Order: sequence, then structure tokens, then C-alpha cells
Amino acid sequence: MKIILVGASGDVGRAAYSELSKRHDIVRAGRSTGDVSVDIGDRQSIGAMYDAVGTFDAVVSTAGNVHFAPLAEYTEATFRVGLDNKVMGQINLVLEGLKRISDHGSFTLTSGVLDRDPVVSGTSAATANGALAGFVTGAAIEQQRGIRINVVSPGLLEASEARYGAFFPGHERVSSEKVGRAFAKCVEGAVTGQVVTVG
Amino acid sequence: MKIILVGASGDVGRAAYSELSKRHDIVRAGRSTGDVSVDIGDRQSIGAMYDAVGTFDAVVSTAGNVHFAPLAEYTEATFRVGLDNKVMGQINLVLEGLKRISDHGSFTLTSGVLDRDPVVSGTSAATANGALAGFVTGAAIEQQRGIRINVVSPGLLEASEARYGAFFPGHERVSSEKVGRAFAKCVEGAVTGQVVTVG
Repeated sequence: MKIILVGASGDVGRAAYSELSKRHDIVRAGRSTGDVSVDIGDRQSIGAMYDAVGTFDAVVSTAGNVHFAPLAEYTEATFRVGLDNKVMGQINLVLEGLKRISDHGSFTLTSGVLDRDPVVSGTSAATANGALAGFVTGAAIEQQRGIRINVVSPGLLEASEARYGAFFPGHERVSSEKVGRAFAKCVEGAVTGQVVTVG
Repeated sequence: MKIILVGASGDVGRAAYSELSKRHDIVRAGRSTGDVSVDIGDRQSIGAMYDAVGTFDAVVSTAGNVHFAPLAEYTEATFRVGLDNKVMGQINLVLEGLKRISDHGSFTLTSGVLDRDPVVSGTSAATANGALAGFVTGAAIEQQRGIRINVVSPGLLEASEARYGAFFPGHERVSSEKVGRAFAKCVEGAVTGQVVTVG
């Protein structure tokens, strides 16, 4: 399969790459690194990425920014980062990609643990994760040509401990191998409209 | 209790009003009708509403627009209506209201059935509903002064049949009385961080 991996340079992206690259042709996409450039915050950039890649069988997105802050300190602008980038950015990958993806292709997005196991300062992330779960539930029933759409919801990766560990007291850390397998399940399996949780 | 009811003129708002007004002092807020004016799409308008009302014990929001369309026909602008208005608008009611609400007060928002029982053309609504579920999950654990926050997720109301019935084939319709009781549970009960489903 030819798979576009958006956000390939992040911890989740590397986990997906390690597993999927064993069996598939991966086009790595990122803002500043990878095989092709994309800013998911800009729908035109997404279209240009698809134009550059040509035909493809699957999109795996592990991209998306969110701002962490105590609830009382969020401004509208800081709260919106998650909605604009992690949510609308990943949704735009689907809306633009639907016109171009091969029959029986799949879209796999990434959310996270915070809408089912919240932490202090994680409300915008919890909101974004819930939005993505709702999106795949709604979008899956309208797919044609055998196209599937799912979202992987990983707990904090062991690989992300140094940067984000302090936000997640007591949360089980998950291995990159386990996260990689969740993406394989979505891309190579037959599920659709699912939130595939890891940890 | 003094309760601000935002979106009081809609079908869900009327259901909440019928139940809560039996026992409480309700300030009805809306864009063009009610006791006080508010446009939840404009955070300044929300602040002005709170300034006009003064002290209050609870906020019930039954407001929020979303655009219905087949998935392939969403533009970024039409998809964003739900994120900007139903999601960010209701979240801004909380972010602004937190500074002013009485001790042991509560916020009750409104989502809907489409993230758990999707319909064609409802993907933006499903996304918005999921976002609101994530938001209350995350926000509830950060509350102080005994403040609670929940979201009511009603199925299609019998009262909304004429306008929206065609979008919901086979969905059970729910009575306004049942929806009203869900708001009473959130306002008068002790739950927090919950999605209270109706139908």
C-alpha cells in the first residue's frame, strides 16, 4: 500500500512509521521534514500535498497542535488552537483526501487519552479528542467505494515522557510498538467509524 | 436558584424552561428574544450578557448552530459553523461565566445524539457533540468552589419533528418533558463531568 503519513516526525508518527514501513510504501509529510511538505492548518497546503503525492491508498495523520493550560487561563485564541489545528486540520485532510484516495482506502486520525482520562490543563485536548471521535462516527457511515475512517487514541507514549510526562501523573505510559499496531489495525484491518484506544 | 437560560426560544430551550421555571428564577437569553440579549458566537456579547444579569447560580445553554450537509459537500466554512458556534460558543459561556458564577453553581450545555447514533449529513453535528463531551470531561476536574459542569445529549425532540425529522430516519423521538428532566438532573442534582443522554 502507498500510505501518506502526516506528522511523521513526532513521537506518534515515528511509532506509526516503524510498524507500517515494514510492509508498505510510506510518504512522510511534515511542516519542515519528510518527503513532502504540509501545514495541516492551511487547507490549500493540504491540497498541494495531495497534488504532489499523486495516487495513494491510505492517509495516517499523527499531526495536530493543542495548547495546554489551566481552564481559567484559556483565552479564546489559546483554546481554539486545538479546534483549528488538531481537529479542523485533520478533518481537512479527510475532506480534501476523499476526492483522491483509492477505492478501499482508509483514513486514520490521531486523538489521545484525555477525553476518557482527563488531566489538569488538558481541557482543550479533551475537547479536540472528543471532536475527532464524533467526526469518525459521523463520517464513516457516509463513505463510499469501500473507504474506511478511524481514529487512534493513544495514552502518553513512553517516548514522550520527557516533554509531556509532568502533565500525566499516574497515567500508564504506552510503548511505541503498541501504538504502531493500533495504526496497523486501522490501515490493514476492516474496522470503520471506530476509536481504537491504546492504554 | 437564579438560572440563565441561553437559547431559551428553541425547542430544547423551551423544554428546559418548562421544567426549571417550576422551581427557579429563569433569565431567558437569546439573540433576538428573551430577557437579555446574547450572541454566543461573540465572546464580548457573552461578557455583556453576564454584566447585565449580575449574580447567578447556574447557566443552562441550549444554544448553538451547526450546518447539515453530505460529507463530500462540506467546505471548511460550513464545517466550521458547528465548531465555532455550538462548540466554541458554549465553551465561551463557561470560560466567561466561571469568573462570575456563585459558589456551588453549575453549567449545563447541550450536545445531541449524533455522535452516538449518526445520520447522513450529520458529521459536523457529531463532531460538535463529541467535542462538548470531551470538554465537560476535562473541565469538570478543574472546578473549584463546588462548581459542576455537564452536557445534556438529547435525541430528536418530538417538538422538532417538522423541521428536522427528515434527517433522523428511525430515530426514537423524545418528549420535551423527558429532556426537561435531564436539565433538572444536571442543575439540581450533584453530577459533574457527565454526558446525560436522553433517548
